[in-house]
Amino acid sequence: MAKARLIFDSSSKNADLYYATGFLVGDPFVYLEASGKKYMVMSDLEIDRAKKESRGCEVLKSSMYFEKAKGRVSSPGIAEMIDALLRSFRIRKLELHPDTSFVLVDALRGFGYSITAGKRPFFQERHIKSLEEKKLIAMSQKMTFRAIEMVRSIIAASKVSAGKLVCGGKVLTSEILRAKVDLFLAERGFIAEDTIIASGVDACDPHCVGHGPIKAGTSIVVDIFPKSRETRYFGDATRTFCKGRAPEALKKLYATVKKGQELALSMVKAGVVGDVIHSAVSDFFTERGYPTREEKGRMVGFFHGTGHAVGLEVHEEPARINKSKYVLAAGNVTSVEPGLYYPSIGGVRIEDLVYVTEEGFDLLGRYPKQLEIL
Amino acid sequence: MAKARLIFDSSSKNADLYYATGFLVGDPFVYLEASGKKYMVMSDLEIDRAKKESRGCEVLKSSMYFEKAKGRVSSPGIAEMIDALLRSFRIRKLELHPDTSFVLVDALRGFGYSITAGKRPFFQERHIKSLEEKKLIAMSQKMTFRAIEMVRSIIAASKVSAGKLVCGGKVLTSEILRAKVDLFLAERGFIAEDTIIASGVDACDPHCVGHGPIKAGTSIVVDIFPKSRETRYFGDATRTFCKGRAPEALKKLYATVKKGQELALSMVKAGVVGDVIHSAVSDFFTERGYPTREEKGRMVGFFHGTGHAVGLEVHEEPARINKSKYVLAAGNVTSVEPGLYYPSIGGVRIEDLVYVTEEGFDLLGRYPKQLEIL
Repeated sequence: MAKARLIFDSSSKNADLYYATGFLVGDPFVYLEASGKKYMVMSDLEIDRAKKESRGCEVLKSSMYFEKAKGRVSSPGIAEMIDALLRSFRIRKLELHPDTSFVLVDALRGFGYSITAGKRPFFQERHIKSLEEKKLIAMSQKMTFRAIEMVRSIIAASKVSAGKLVCGGKVLTSEILRAKVDLFLAERGFIAEDTIIASGVDACDPHCVGHGPIKAGTSIVVDIFPKSRETRYFGDATRTFCKGRAPEALKKLYATVKKGQELALSMVKAGVVGDVIHSAVSDFFTERGYPTREEKGRMVGFFHGTGHAVGLEVHEEPARINKSKYVLAAGNVTSVEPGLYYPSIGGVRIEDLVYVTEEGFDLLGRYPKQLEIL
Repeated sequence: MAKARLIFDSSSKNADLYYATGFLVGDPFVYLEASGKKYMVMSDLEIDRAKKESRGCEVLKSSMYFEKAKGRVSSPGIAEMIDALLRSFRIRKLELHPDTSFVLVDALRGFGYSITAGKRPFFQERHIKSLEEKKLIAMSQKMTFRAIEMVRSIIAASKVSAGKLVCGGKVLTSEILRAKVDLFLAERGFIAEDTIIASGVDACDPHCVGHGPIKAGTSIVVDIFPKSRETRYFGDATRTFCKGRAPEALKKLYATVKKGQELALSMVKAGVVGDVIHSAVSDFFTERGYPTREEKGRMVGFFHGTGHAVGLEVHEEPARINKSKYVLAAGNVTSVEPGLYYPSIGGVRIEDLVYVTEEGFDLLGRYPKQLEIL
């Protein structure tokens, strides 16, 4: 018999569980694979909806196993319920999702089960996106670029007053632009969280969402990664703008990041090891006079990965183009997003998503790369 | 020395971690409490933002501990980094967050650490909301009721044609109303997911979000639980409506649920055991001729808990009014939301949030309870 596999989690938190069941619920439930069949073990509250909305799974009632467990303990918890479930399937060996709480695992081991950890992702096939998944990610990515274009058009329509952007008589801030992006996406069925609209020194901290007035003549990093409410797949894209003429140093920085991204893209194809691409980009930046190091207690240069996998999660492990040794495979979807950050010049990041193929890649969505908005 | 405590998780997933640090990030990081001090161990990418945005924590660099770990293994992972961190603090005993992956715990035990599990929530003080937290939840709840009022006004403005609601010349659907709610909330800085707008038989499945045309003369369950983007605190409220005259059986069902909620509320105060309230409501429903049982393979009656704790999570463990023996304490925030569901009559749920006091409770936000929208 093949090893039984089990997840106990909420499918709104655990993308593997959503991938396996197609069923979205905030409360945790048990998913079991045994003898080639898939089961969901649901509370009375969720059982009817689970039967209707899930895919490819037989739906069992957790209350039945809680009842069975009462033969052994007076008030059974999750571990005792799972024990009763596994007994009824005559399972003694289990592979568990690596996110499983050690409290549950300690209890199950106490009952005598032999437990090993599954890989991350639990369903390795998640690395290799189907053509259907590719289409869904591309749809999310197209919407991401529409949101970026919306931001660009607002910046274009703004005037500059005392170094700040002014739109409709009001000073344009990161907060206003972020709210507009989130609203634009919500109207179109997408959820955006932590959208980055960062100008000036904020743009030099890659994950700073940005605060206060948008400054003219500085870089404005716009990084949006919305999730479709319907399909649950993410898009993820970044463009960097500058309102008005950019200082020469910023133009040079932008051109270097753009070339760095082109270099990375030229190397993407099935069989290439991610860290080879990442090192090539890092080395290219260093050679061009942009070293990565600590300066005055903060990091400057290129100090994040070149790319991460995207799908049902915005950061999927471990398909990344970074310091690790991941071998790219056809069907991977990964971001390609080099960046350079120097408080004295500005922050620049350019990010696209690609679908890796045997020959190279298919770009998912496309949008111009132009720094200045005059 | 007090026991050291550690969380390794993402603060956008783990509400305990956000509660402790006030710092929001999608990627996992280490939080450590040792000798009465709090530490966050951050990647180069997050360190500057962590220093600026977190509260009450000293920020350490994970890269420093990865470097130290290289003295022992060539490519250290998270477990080896945490080992190096704990060595530098001379910690051998640890209490871990109960959500911690067993893979990490197995590794740390392998290094000789003695590990126990913390409670859920990891910070027990989360059960007892401060007055500041009470205010933030009340603000989210007021916005929730504004969204419910928006739904009511659309239903009121709709006409009925062939048993379906029509608004602005278009058939009004669950999907349209859900999109309007989500948009209304997004415009006001809130994130709503899985908003329930369910009429007809959909309303009889408590977690069904609802699909298709809104039906006149049937119950319409509107359950909204938005999170403030800024404060991260949730609201959670439900009202049940009926467009036009309701059938007598539905009116009686509604009146019974309303009385059930009043009964529950009359019992809420510090020191009362949750299951006493829950049983009283269940018994009341049964006595009034509304039994809970399986009928034709699906659950009917009252088959969910009367109330769950609400705060940084929409369902917080374990402060609930349900079958478990949780003793209510002053400062708890819990929903009070009995419901009755019979496919032959309809589904009715009425939900409010209360802040438990020594004498009873403070209602957080308020909104009328009226079934019919004529």
